Amino acid sequence: QLEMDLASIEKGGYDHFMLKEIYEQPKSIGDTLRGRLLPEQGLIQMDGVYQFQEKLLNAQRIIIIGCGTSWHAGLVAEYIFEELARIPVEVEYASEFRYRNPVITERDVVIAISQSGETADTLAAIKLAKERGATIFGICNVVGSSIARETHAGAYTHAGPEIGVASTKAFTAQVAVLNLIAIKLAHKKGLLKESYYHRLLNELNEIPRKIEDMLKSDAQSRYIAELYKDAPNFLYLGRGYNFPVALEGALKLKEISYIHAEGYPAAEMKHGPIALIDENMPVVVIAPKSGQYDKIVSNIQEVKAREGKVIAIVNDGDSEIAKMADHVIEVKDTMEVFSPLLTTIPLQLLSYHIAVMRGCNVDQPRNLAKSVTVE
Amino acid sequence: QLEMDLASIEKGGYDHFMLKEIYEQPKSIGDTLRGRLLPEQGLIQMDGVYQFQEKLLNAQRIIIIGCGTSWHAGLVAEYIFEELARIPVEVEYASEFRYRNPVITERDVVIAISQSGETADTLAAIKLAKERGATIFGICNVVGSSIARETHAGAYTHAGPEIGVASTKAFTAQVAVLNLIAIKLAHKKGLLKESYYHRLLNELNEIPRKIEDMLKSDAQSRYIAELYKDAPNFLYLGRGYNFPVALEGALKLKEISYIHAEGYPAAEMKHGPIALIDENMPVVVIAPKSGQYDKIVSNIQEVKAREGKVIAIVNDGDSEIAKMADHVIEVKDTMEVFSPLLTTIPLQLLSYHIAVMRGCNVDQPRNLAKSVTVE
Repeated sequence: QLEMDLASIEKGGYDHFMLKEIYEQPKSIGDTLRGRLLPEQGLIQMDGVYQFQEKLLNAQRIIIIGCGTSWHAGLVAEYIFEELARIPVEVEYASEFRYRNPVITERDVVIAISQSGETADTLAAIKLAKERGATIFGICNVVGSSIARETHAGAYTHAGPEIGVASTKAFTAQVAVLNLIAIKLAHKKGLLKESYYHRLLNELNEIPRKIEDMLKSDAQSRYIAELYKDAPNFLYLGRGYNFPVALEGALKLKEISYIHAEGYPAAEMKHGPIALIDENMPVVVIAPKSGQYDKIVSNIQEVKAREGKVIAIVNDGDSEIAKMADHVIEVKDTMEVFSPLLTTIPLQLLSYHIAVMRGCNVDQPRNLAKSVTVE
Repeated sequence: QLEMDLASIEKGGYDHFMLKEIYEQPKSIGDTLRGRLLPEQGLIQMDGVYQFQEKLLNAQRIIIIGCGTSWHAGLVAEYIFEELARIPVEVEYASEFRYRNPVITERDVVIAISQSGETADTLAAIKLAKERGATIFGICNVVGSSIARETHAGAYTHAGPEIGVASTKAFTAQVAVLNLIAIKLAHKKGLLKESYYHRLLNELNEIPRKIEDMLKSDAQSRYIAELYKDAPNFLYLGRGYNFPVALEGALKLKEISYIHAEGYPAAEMKHGPIALIDENMPVVVIAPKSGQYDKIVSNIQEVKAREGKVIAIVNDGDSEIAKMADHVIEVKDTMEVFSPLLTTIPLQLLSYHIAVMRGCNVDQPRNLAKSVTVE
């Protein structure tokens, strides 16, 4: 009894830890940025980066390793780092990296991402990369975790404890930290115009507030969940920065609702997955104005031509897509590079509501562990 | 009438072009290797590679671009090139590559893969990479195609015309060509012991004959197809060289049977997809002896612990996995680096039989075009 009460107090009035953690994101991202992002001074301060700045600035290649949701954060980072800091990035599943004989040199920097800091495959991959002389930078949430201890330097995400097995606030915190690092390196390398640099800092600073606005109502995601909760399959499509968000959205749905959802870069649809689309297939399309908007509009038209049901994530007031999609969920506008921090939110809510309506154990889905400490 | 007769003659007695093309693989891979692979002389002769040998040997990075099945061939190549030739490889969806601002330098070599040589996204990606000064090497099947003309050098796959929309023999031919190039570069770089080099040449030379043996009976894949043809979902798992084969196997099933099949690196299962597994989920596991056999055995046990149905692709006479899997399909043993050329075959047949049993239009699946010449 006492234990139950304690759990319900810890949930702070929310039905599940996952929902609480979704709603905590304005605060958790705020905590991630606090003391590091100083837009008024035009600064990003990160001790871990400062310590290995030369290594990072001169990196021939950045290899990002992770598993599951952390691997998706790495895919987002690939877009951010290559675009801003102009460093070639390779993202690898930790489990694959560790068992092959990867090409690593002393000029490579490995960024290892793990919420728990205990992920067995990631830890083994770090040890392999260290043996080969690479510099290892860790991004973990749990302070003092094994990965935090094994790496040469790093940055904590400061998202606070994440109890729900399906990662939510840890993912957005990882993406926020990766944004900070990429912007800092890009600025140090002299690749950003001052005005653009300041716009980046100011806009990143606005993200928590924008998420807070977006979280004022989840009526639309709840309504859509009600309509599609019995769908046996879902597709998620995105382009560019939002391609990894499509993967992450699909993973959330898989993890907690047991619906087979799959993410794809939208243009790959024509190379296979479009064969799956008929009037029974809900397709979630991430379609903010920034990014290749016209291209994603064509992708939506292709889905509609096959009578698929389109649930589009659009910017506030987008009327073009609203006309062709079956449903839209609105997110705030932002710069393309920060877009995943916002578009992820409604996908988390959609998965959550569907799972609850299906009677699933949202916080502890079957077969899954919070942190995969064995192979 | 005449047209139908012509088509049936062209199918050479097979019910569908796809089946004919699956059975042609001993010949098509033989054609790919002919005149290039000379095991008795200890030589690999490829004009296209010879022409740009210095560029390739000194490549700082190889970036492979493609779409759909060709992208999967690229993923296989990443394992082959890094393992043998020790050149860092990055594999990208052509559609994603072309719309971001990728980091490319004059020391990078881009390998573009396309059966038709007309894939719009791949062609656009090539043009972008050329503008940035990269050397472009093309791997196409159709002689004189746009991509063949746009690239600096290249190698044709010589698989012969592929009529079935779902690519089969073009994929194995692409993988065979990529094997040839990687072995040649590795040898030139002095990275291979002579005895190992000769073993590679001899073993690759044996592949067509091994496939021919394997194709003598498709009774087992037909039997399994009958049992699972009504499954709404499939998972495909593989590790290392066979992780891309899992993706390709799933894509084949999607394309022609409209079953939602998804491929995953086996170790990622614990980071999400395992939640999908119950007694209704067939899981195809690619588990040859070469590669991380013990690890894949654990993955099979995890699937069985959740009552999933395991269809394992194993080497001839494997009794360990036969004891735990629900079904096994046997393939010939080979060196790990060539494994995808063999493990792919039963997955093609399984998809084919399932699609036929479901009454699908195997050669011309709904919504798909043979060559995606528009975005």
